[in-house]
Amino acid sequence: MSAAVPNANAAPIAWAGRRVLVAGGAGFLGSNLVHKLIREGASVIVVDRLLPEGGANRRNLKDVPATLHMVEGDVGDEHLIAPLVAETEFLFNLAARTSHTDSMSDPLGDLDANVVSQLHLLETIKRENRAVRIVFAGTRQVYGSPRKLPVTEEHPLNPPDLNAVHKMAAEGYHRLYDRVYGIPSSVLRLTNCYGPRMRVKDARQTFVGVWIRLLLEGKPFEVWGGEQKRDFCFSEDVIEALLAGAEPTARGRVFNVGGEVASLRELAELLVTQVEGHFIVKDFPADRKQIDIGDFAADDSAFRATTGWAPRVPLSEGLRHTVDYYRRHLTSYL
Amino acid sequence: MSAAVPNANAAPIAWAGRRVLVAGGAGFLGSNLVHKLIREGASVIVVDRLLPEGGANRRNLKDVPATLHMVEGDVGDEHLIAPLVAETEFLFNLAARTSHTDSMSDPLGDLDANVVSQLHLLETIKRENRAVRIVFAGTRQVYGSPRKLPVTEEHPLNPPDLNAVHKMAAEGYHRLYDRVYGIPSSVLRLTNCYGPRMRVKDARQTFVGVWIRLLLEGKPFEVWGGEQKRDFCFSEDVIEALLAGAEPTARGRVFNVGGEVASLRELAELLVTQVEGHFIVKDFPADRKQIDIGDFAADDSAFRATTGWAPRVPLSEGLRHTVDYYRRHLTSYL
Repeated sequence: MSAAVPNANAAPIAWAGRRVLVAGGAGFLGSNLVHKLIREGASVIVVDRLLPEGGANRRNLKDVPATLHMVEGDVGDEHLIAPLVAETEFLFNLAARTSHTDSMSDPLGDLDANVVSQLHLLETIKRENRAVRIVFAGTRQVYGSPRKLPVTEEHPLNPPDLNAVHKMAAEGYHRLYDRVYGIPSSVLRLTNCYGPRMRVKDARQTFVGVWIRLLLEGKPFEVWGGEQKRDFCFSEDVIEALLAGAEPTARGRVFNVGGEVASLRELAELLVTQVEGHFIVKDFPADRKQIDIGDFAADDSAFRATTGWAPRVPLSEGLRHTVDYYRRHLTSYL
Repeated sequence: MSAAVPNANAAPIAWAGRRVLVAGGAGFLGSNLVHKLIREGASVIVVDRLLPEGGANRRNLKDVPATLHMVEGDVGDEHLIAPLVAETEFLFNLAARTSHTDSMSDPLGDLDANVVSQLHLLETIKRENRAVRIVFAGTRQVYGSPRKLPVTEEHPLNPPDLNAVHKMAAEGYHRLYDRVYGIPSSVLRLTNCYGPRMRVKDARQTFVGVWIRLLLEGKPFEVWGGEQKRDFCFSEDVIEALLAGAEPTARGRVFNVGGEVASLRELAELLVTQVEGHFIVKDFPADRKQIDIGDFAADDSAFRATTGWAPRVPLSEGLRHTVDYYRRHLTSYL
């Protein structure tokens, strides 16, 4: 099997016994991935800065076995990371700041987390262990306002905020270190991910979290605009995509990963069928409108053809799972 | 005249009396621009770090009038830059490290110069004076290996070295600060520029410089590969492009700027018709081959249509001017 030839029938990776590092593993997607990998029998190490303004939450890893090795720190800390990557077979690189608005109010902080640390990480891997198979979590935000839908990987890049500029640079690093240094990497440009263990305290990670929290607290939530379409992917499907992204056929490539397209208003209406409550449609606040991208829908046919992955969880079902989770655990996320 | 409507017949900007800041103004293109602006009667301030491994050379500004204000320092130094940009109408932003190989051996140094400093600069402008009209010197290197020729601005970005990743991020900053903060900016993706005042000591800026130096020293020069095509633009034409890039019609946009396409062997043969000497065709060294991009030719029709600019100096004539310059001044560049 050649790495260059798409093969939708490739056998999935057997994760049992694999040594896996999950950067950002206390965060939303990272922790869901950790749970999955542990269930599959992998030997998992988590690195996470546990920043209060990020997606990390100790509750996210509370239910995993005590054998999980948790390292609190920055992936850009070469002394911390060097001995870890020396022993690693797979790195799921989800360590990032995700807030678009924070990136505009704290440009240097976003640069440091999403670019400087990533460059240090890759330099460490280059020096210590070039066999580490990396899957980097990119973002559809790099495209900016789509010129046409659905958006393929060929769509010009026009980052609408500093977070997107920085994520664009970091994915550039991964593609480059794959090509030049042979560190096998793939980039998945994720869309609007939602599910259990996401941040719900505020909109730093996703507005869906805030909506669900407000509903569960018996308060109305605000829908800004409402007609914008987004491509929503449930965390279980994202995790399957990340695992598929580690397959040899995906190496050296950049893929969109989508889910189910709905407008914000449709999403809001789905939510209020599941939790009694209501929402208010408002105009965009000025600072958000400046960096909003309009409608988005991902063309992820390349990823499907290459790995055989497809999303399985419909939006209504994913929202139900998510709401159920926060009915039980909301207080841990406030 | 609307900024959105291309207008090839726009009157060029009258530079007399304009307050212009040239970042990287002691370098190759920066200093040629300074000479031109001074001739046109502009009031020019140069900011340059004068790094020995960069394109800066004090000789480059030796012949300009003593009224030129030269500030030695980093564009990322907010205390240094704030009072300057407060008084600036136009900023030609050419402060950069340009060496592809240096960026691979010193990733953090390249990041610092080409990204961190640029973000500080734009933050300073955002705070001090959002009316500054910026022209940012980008690079065709951001495209990586072209999929088809000539390359338009729509070509996917796939930076083949860290310098290109970082220049891609910096152009992202300029487009973003234009859109979000109204700081009028345009980006010119320059190709292989050559001419008087380029670095000839080594290939950190352009291999053309090294070739000319070796010829004038009576030594053979090496042509790696030889069949690769490059798009060569003479410095006078680049300077006219930078000036045209400041016109209102170019605002908020990214443009390719090309020149004349020739293979490396053709260029070498042109040179040895002008200076007696010879060259040796060799295979690429391994570290260069990894980051080489194959053939390149720019489609700059958008820039021509928008500004009316076109290159005027044929390659043979540009090379003759360049050789003449270094016949007189070579020792100042060694």
